[in-house]
Amino acid sequence: MLDELLYPDSVAIVGASNTPGKVGYAVLKNLMDGGYQGKIFPVNPGSPVILGVPAFKDLKSLPQKIALSVIAVPTAAVKGAVFDSVSAGAKAIIVITAGFKETGHEGAELETLIANHCKASGVRLLGPNCLGAINTHHKLNVSFARQTPIEGSISVISQSGALCTAILDWAESRKLGIGKMLSIGNKADLNEIDLLKTLQKDEKTKVIVCYLESIDSGKDFIRAAEEASAVKPVVVLKAGTSAAGVKAASSHTGSLAGADTAYGAAFKRSGVVRAKTFEALFDCAIALDMQPLPNGRRIAVITNAGGPGIMAADALENSGMLVAKLTDKTAEELKSKLPPAASVGNPIDVLGDADPDRYVLALKTAEADEAVDGILVILTPQAMTRPAETAQAVAKCVKEGITKPVLVSFMGGTEVMPGRNELTIARIPDYTAPERAVSALKAMCEYSEWRRRPPRMVTRFPVNSTRVQRVLARHLKTGRMQVGEVQAKEMLRAYGFNVPDGRLAVTLNDALEIAERVGYPVALKISSPDIIHKSDIGGVKLNLTTADMVRDAFELMMMRIPQKAPEARIEGVYVEKMAKKGLEVILGMNRDPQFGPMLMFGLGGIFVEVMKDVAFHLAPITADEAMQMLTATRSYQLLKGARGQSGVNLSAIADGLQRISQLATEFPQVAELDINPFMVGEAGQDAVVADTRITLREVK
Amino acid sequence: MLDELLYPDSVAIVGASNTPGKVGYAVLKNLMDGGYQGKIFPVNPGSPVILGVPAFKDLKSLPQKIALSVIAVPTAAVKGAVFDSVSAGAKAIIVITAGFKETGHEGAELETLIANHCKASGVRLLGPNCLGAINTHHKLNVSFARQTPIEGSISVISQSGALCTAILDWAESRKLGIGKMLSIGNKADLNEIDLLKTLQKDEKTKVIVCYLESIDSGKDFIRAAEEASAVKPVVVLKAGTSAAGVKAASSHTGSLAGADTAYGAAFKRSGVVRAKTFEALFDCAIALDMQPLPNGRRIAVITNAGGPGIMAADALENSGMLVAKLTDKTAEELKSKLPPAASVGNPIDVLGDADPDRYVLALKTAEADEAVDGILVILTPQAMTRPAETAQAVAKCVKEGITKPVLVSFMGGTEVMPGRNELTIARIPDYTAPERAVSALKAMCEYSEWRRRPPRMVTRFPVNSTRVQRVLARHLKTGRMQVGEVQAKEMLRAYGFNVPDGRLAVTLNDALEIAERVGYPVALKISSPDIIHKSDIGGVKLNLTTADMVRDAFELMMMRIPQKAPEARIEGVYVEKMAKKGLEVILGMNRDPQFGPMLMFGLGGIFVEVMKDVAFHLAPITADEAMQMLTATRSYQLLKGARGQSGVNLSAIADGLQRISQLATEFPQVAELDINPFMVGEAGQDAVVADTRITLREVK
Repeated sequence: MLDELLYPDSVAIVGASNTPGKVGYAVLKNLMDGGYQGKIFPVNPGSPVILGVPAFKDLKSLPQKIALSVIAVPTAAVKGAVFDSVSAGAKAIIVITAGFKETGHEGAELETLIANHCKASGVRLLGPNCLGAINTHHKLNVSFARQTPIEGSISVISQSGALCTAILDWAESRKLGIGKMLSIGNKADLNEIDLLKTLQKDEKTKVIVCYLESIDSGKDFIRAAEEASAVKPVVVLKAGTSAAGVKAASSHTGSLAGADTAYGAAFKRSGVVRAKTFEALFDCAIALDMQPLPNGRRIAVITNAGGPGIMAADALENSGMLVAKLTDKTAEELKSKLPPAASVGNPIDVLGDADPDRYVLALKTAEADEAVDGILVILTPQAMTRPAETAQAVAKCVKEGITKPVLVSFMGGTEVMPGRNELTIARIPDYTAPERAVSALKAMCEYSEWRRRPPRMVTRFPVNSTRVQRVLARHLKTGRMQVGEVQAKEMLRAYGFNVPDGRLAVTLNDALEIAERVGYPVALKISSPDIIHKSDIGGVKLNLTTADMVRDAFELMMMRIPQKAPEARIEGVYVEKMAKKGLEVILGMNRDPQFGPMLMFGLGGIFVEVMKDVAFHLAPITADEAMQMLTATRSYQLLKGARGQSGVNLSAIADGLQRISQLATEFPQVAELDINPFMVGEAGQDAVVADTRITLREVK
Repeated sequence: MLDELLYPDSVAIVGASNTPGKVGYAVLKNLMDGGYQGKIFPVNPGSPVILGVPAFKDLKSLPQKIALSVIAVPTAAVKGAVFDSVSAGAKAIIVITAGFKETGHEGAELETLIANHCKASGVRLLGPNCLGAINTHHKLNVSFARQTPIEGSISVISQSGALCTAILDWAESRKLGIGKMLSIGNKADLNEIDLLKTLQKDEKTKVIVCYLESIDSGKDFIRAAEEASAVKPVVVLKAGTSAAGVKAASSHTGSLAGADTAYGAAFKRSGVVRAKTFEALFDCAIALDMQPLPNGRRIAVITNAGGPGIMAADALENSGMLVAKLTDKTAEELKSKLPPAASVGNPIDVLGDADPDRYVLALKTAEADEAVDGILVILTPQAMTRPAETAQAVAKCVKEGITKPVLVSFMGGTEVMPGRNELTIARIPDYTAPERAVSALKAMCEYSEWRRRPPRMVTRFPVNSTRVQRVLARHLKTGRMQVGEVQAKEMLRAYGFNVPDGRLAVTLNDALEIAERVGYPVALKISSPDIIHKSDIGGVKLNLTTADMVRDAFELMMMRIPQKAPEARIEGVYVEKMAKKGLEVILGMNRDPQFGPMLMFGLGGIFVEVMKDVAFHLAPITADEAMQMLTATRSYQLLKGARGQSGVNLSAIADGLQRISQLATEFPQVAELDINPFMVGEAGQDAVVADTRITLREVK
C-alpha cells in the first residue's frame, strides 16, 4: 500500500523556504494549510524558522527519524539530500527537483545513482521532476500545486505535473473531490504500475485516472491494469498517439512511446477505459465514480427541451448506444401524469415549463421500465425552469430509489451553475452538453461489459513442438533469420495448419514424380536460403496443370536463376499442390517492444493495405477474442456472407489466429509471422496456408 | 434587412402581464430592462398599468400605429391578436404562443390561416411557438429568455427556443456577446433562409450560428447559405443525423428531416461550417468571430506544460492539421532567448515557470515564422503561473502585431477563469482543452479553404438531348418508370458515354449476325419491359466466345424464360460485345427531396456495400468537385495506383460523374441512375458502361 509515501507520520521538507514563489515554500505551505496531522520538519541551512515552524539546518540535525522526505533543492544538491534522507530514516522520498533524465546523459546517470541508492536501502522514490503527491485521505499535500483538493474518491496518476495543476484547478471550480494525486515525473523508481497496484488496494479510491506518455513495462502494465480493472475502473489518457505527438513526448520526458495500436490492444485486454481527450478523461471518471454501472446500452432521455433531446438521440445512436424503446406501460403512465403536449416517447419531453416534480415523475417511470438500462436527464434554463430546485429534487429521487445510472446535462452557464454544483455534491455527474454525457455513458457500458465478460480460457492445441524447434535451431545456428517458405510451412503444419501437399525436388524427375503424387495443378517455387523475393527473379510458377508445363517451368528456373543470382545456393525446387481458391485473408503476428506478441487479422490485399481494415489483439488469445477480431473489421460483413453470397469458414480463421497465438507464445524466437494469403473456403471447408513469411530473432 | 422586425421604433406586447412567471411579464420586462429606446405599448384587457407603464385594453385602443407586435396570449386568442396587430399597423409580428402545427392537424390549419393573413397584408411573421427575438444592436429583447446578452457580433438562428436559453446562459458566464438571436419556432412565415439573407447583409453580424432540425427548401437554403458564406462564416448544427434523432425531431416540431448525407453534401457545397455537437457550435463560432482566417494548416503550439503540448500535437495530426515545422531561424531565436531547458521544437515549451514575457516572445517568433499559419497557446496553472497577467500580455501582443489567428487553451477552472475572461474580452477565443481549440482551428482552415476555392465552372458537354427525350417520352407515356438496359444505355450513349456495341436480336439468326459484327466475346441479355431482374431467371449469359455458345444461350433463353415468366412480353435478346475488363466503379445519382440530384461515387461491389466507402456531391458538379469525390474515398489509394500497380483513368471517372450531373440537371424526369459497374482501364484508356439502371418519375 506504499503507506510510507501516502500515510507518513512525519515529513521532512528539504529546501523548505520562507520565500513565496519558491517550490520549497509552496510545498511546506500546502502541507501546513492542508491540515496534516503528523510532524513537519522544514530543512534549510539558512532559516531557523520557516512559516512559523522551527526549521533544521540539515537532515542530520533532525530530532527523530522521519517517514517521508520531500526534496526541493537545486539539482546539484539533490544527491546529498537523498543520501541524507535515507540516513535520517526516510522510508519514502519524493524528489520534486528537475534536471535529471529529461536533460540528457549526465542527468540520467545522476538519476540512476539516486534510484539505486534508494533501492539498496529499501526506500521508495517518487520522481524526480514531479509536482509531488497529494493524499486527501491523510490530509497530506506535499506538492507545489496552487490548490489542495477536497476529499474524494477519484485518484490520479500523472506523468505530467502541469496537468495535475489543471486538474486540481478544474476540480475546485466544479466542487469535485480527489483522493490521491501522484505526479510520477521521471519514474526513477515508482512508476504507473506500482501506483496502479497501490490504488487498486486503496479502499478509498473508487476510480483510478491515469495520464501517461510512456509505459515502462508493457506486460506488467497489462497485468496490473487488468487486476485493478477487475476491482475498479482505470481511465487512461495516453498521449502521443500520433507521430507528431510521439515526437513531442520523447522530447518532453526522454521516453519512447510505443505504437498506438499496441496501446489500444493492451487497454482493451486489460479493461482500461481509454479517454481520447483531456475532457473525456474526467467525463468518464466522474460517471464511473459517482454512478452504478449500467447493465446494458438502452438509455432513456428526459428533457425539458426538444432540441437537446434530439442531440442526445443522435449522439446515442451514432456512438452505438441505444435509445431505449419504452414499454407501453411507461408511455401510459407518463401520458396520464404529464401535460398533454408532453412527448411520452423517448426522449421523454417534460416540456419547457417543467417543474422539479415532472422530472422526478419521469425519472421514477424510467427506473421502473425494464427496457431502460440508464437515464440521461437534460435541462435548459427556460423562463419557468428552476435549475437548483430541480437538481435537488433529482438528487433526492436518485438517492432514495434509483438503481440505474443517472447522468445529467444542465446546459448553460450562470443560471444553471448552482444546480450543477448541487448535482456534483450529490454524486450525480453533470455535463455541459448532452453529447459528452453520452460518451461517458458509453464508456460505462463498455467497462461494464468487460466486467461481465466470460472467464478467459486460452485453448492449448496439441502440436508438434519438436519439429518447430528443429527448424528454429537449424536457422539460428547459421544466423539465418528469414525462414524459407518450405520450412515456414513445415512449422505451420506442425502447429496444425493445413498446408498444401508438397516436397523438395532436386531433379526434374523428382519434380514430375512429386507433381504426379500430390496431383495437378501444382506450383513450382525455387528453394534457396539466399533468395527471399522468389517471384522477382522468376522463381515461382503457379497453376501448372500438366507434366509438360512442370518440365518447362523446372528447366527454365534451373537455367535462368543461376544467371540472375549467381551467388545463390540452390537447394532445388519445391513442388506443391495448388491451394484451392477461396477468400484470401491475412493472419499476422509481430512483437511490440512493450506489449509482446500482437496478432493481426484482415481481409487480404487491398483491404489491409488501402482500407486499413485490420484488427489487432495481444497474444495469447481466446476463441472468443479471436472471433472478436473478425467482427471488429468492417469486412466482417463480407466474411459472414453479404450480397446473397454465403459466408466463409469463420471458425477456421479464428482457429488459425489461436494457433499463431500459441506458436508466438511458445516460441519467443519467432519475431514476425505472416500468412498471406490464408485461403478460406465456405463454412465446413478447410482453410489453407497459401503463402507465409516467418522472421526469427535471437532470444537471450 | 427585416428592419421592421429587428429595428422597430415601437413595440406592442400583446398579453403583457404583471405576474412574474408569465411569458407576457418576461417579454415586457426584458424589453424594458434591455434599454430599448423606442415606444412600448403593453396590451392587456385587465391591467391599466403593467410594470409601471400605461397599458392598453386592446390593440384598437393604441394611440398610434405600431411597428412590431409581440403576441403572448393563449392559443385561442392568437388569431384575433394577429388580425388586430395587422390592423394596428404592425409590419412585423412575433407569435411566441405554442399550440399550432406541432400539436396536429387543427393547430396546423390555424397556423396557416394566420400566416396567410400576414402574407396578404405584407406583414412578416416570426414563430409561432418560439422564444422571440433579441437584437442587442438595437437594445431590443422581445423574448421570454431569462437573460439579455451583452452586445456582440455572433448572431443566432435557432429552431429550438430552449437551446437559445442555454446559449444565453452560457454566453453570460463566459462574458460573450451576441448580436441577433432569432428563435424561428414553427417557421410559419420567416424561416432560416429569410434570416440567413438578413444576417448576411447585417454589418454588425460577423458570424451566423444556426441550430436547425429541418430545412424548408433545400435549394433555396443552399443558395442563401452559399451567398452568406461568401461574406461571413455560417456555422450550423443540424440535429437529427441518426434514425433515432430524426424520429425525435419529427415528434418535436412535426417537420421531416432529410437524409444526413444530403445535408452533408449541401453544407459542403455552400461553405457551411458544420458543427457535430453543441459545444462545437460555439467553439467554431467564437474562433471565426474573433480571429482572422488562417492561410494554411500549419500550427505552432506554445505551452508551459509538456503533456498538454503532446495532446495538442496528437489532436492536430489526428484531425488532418499540421504541426508546423518551424524554421531554423525560429529555433535559433527561441534558443537564444528562452531558458536552456525550454523545447524550441514545436510544441514550443516555454516551461512551467514561464512568465508573460516568455509567452509574448514565443508568440512574436511564431508570427515571424513563414512556416506557421496559426498559433495555439496553452497554459496550465502551475505554481509560478500568472494566468490573468499572461492573458493580458497575450491579448496586448496579439492586438499590437499578430496577424495570424491565435487560439488559446487556459486549462483548469478557478485560477485560470480571470485570465479566460480577459481573453474573451480581448476577442481571443479560449478553450477548456487543447483538443477543442484544434477542432476550431480545423473548422477555420476548412472555411478558409472554401473561401479561397477557384470559381465554380460547370462544364457543359455537347450531348444529344433529343435521343434522351425520345426514350423518356416513350416510357412516361406508357407509365413505365423502369428504363430497360438497352434504352438506358442509349440514353448514356447520347450523353457521351462509351457503351459496348450491341443490338436487339429477335431471331437466332439476328443474334448470330450481330455477334459476328460486334465481335466475340459477347453477352446475351433478355429484353422485356416486364423483367427487371434478368439474371434471376437465366436471362443473362456472359462471355460467349463462339457462335455455338450464342446458339445454345439464345435457344435456352427462348425456351426457359416463357416458362418462368409466362406473363412477360419478350422483345428479343440484346446481343452485346463484352466490355473490356477493368476496375469496376459505381457512378450513381438519386434525388434528395430537399436538395435535388445527388451524385455518388464508389469503388465497385464490396467497397460500396460493405465498406460504405462512398462520396456524395450535389449536382451540378464541376471538374474539380468530381475529382474531389474520388479523392474523398479511401479507395482512392487504389484508383491512383497502389502496391506497385498502375492507377486507372481518373479523368474518365470524373468525366462520367460530370456527364451524369448534366443529365440529372437537364432531365428532372430521371429519378435515379446507377452505372454499375463502370469499367475503368488504365490512364488514357476508355471507360465503359457495363451495366446501368435508370428509374424515371413524373415531373409536373
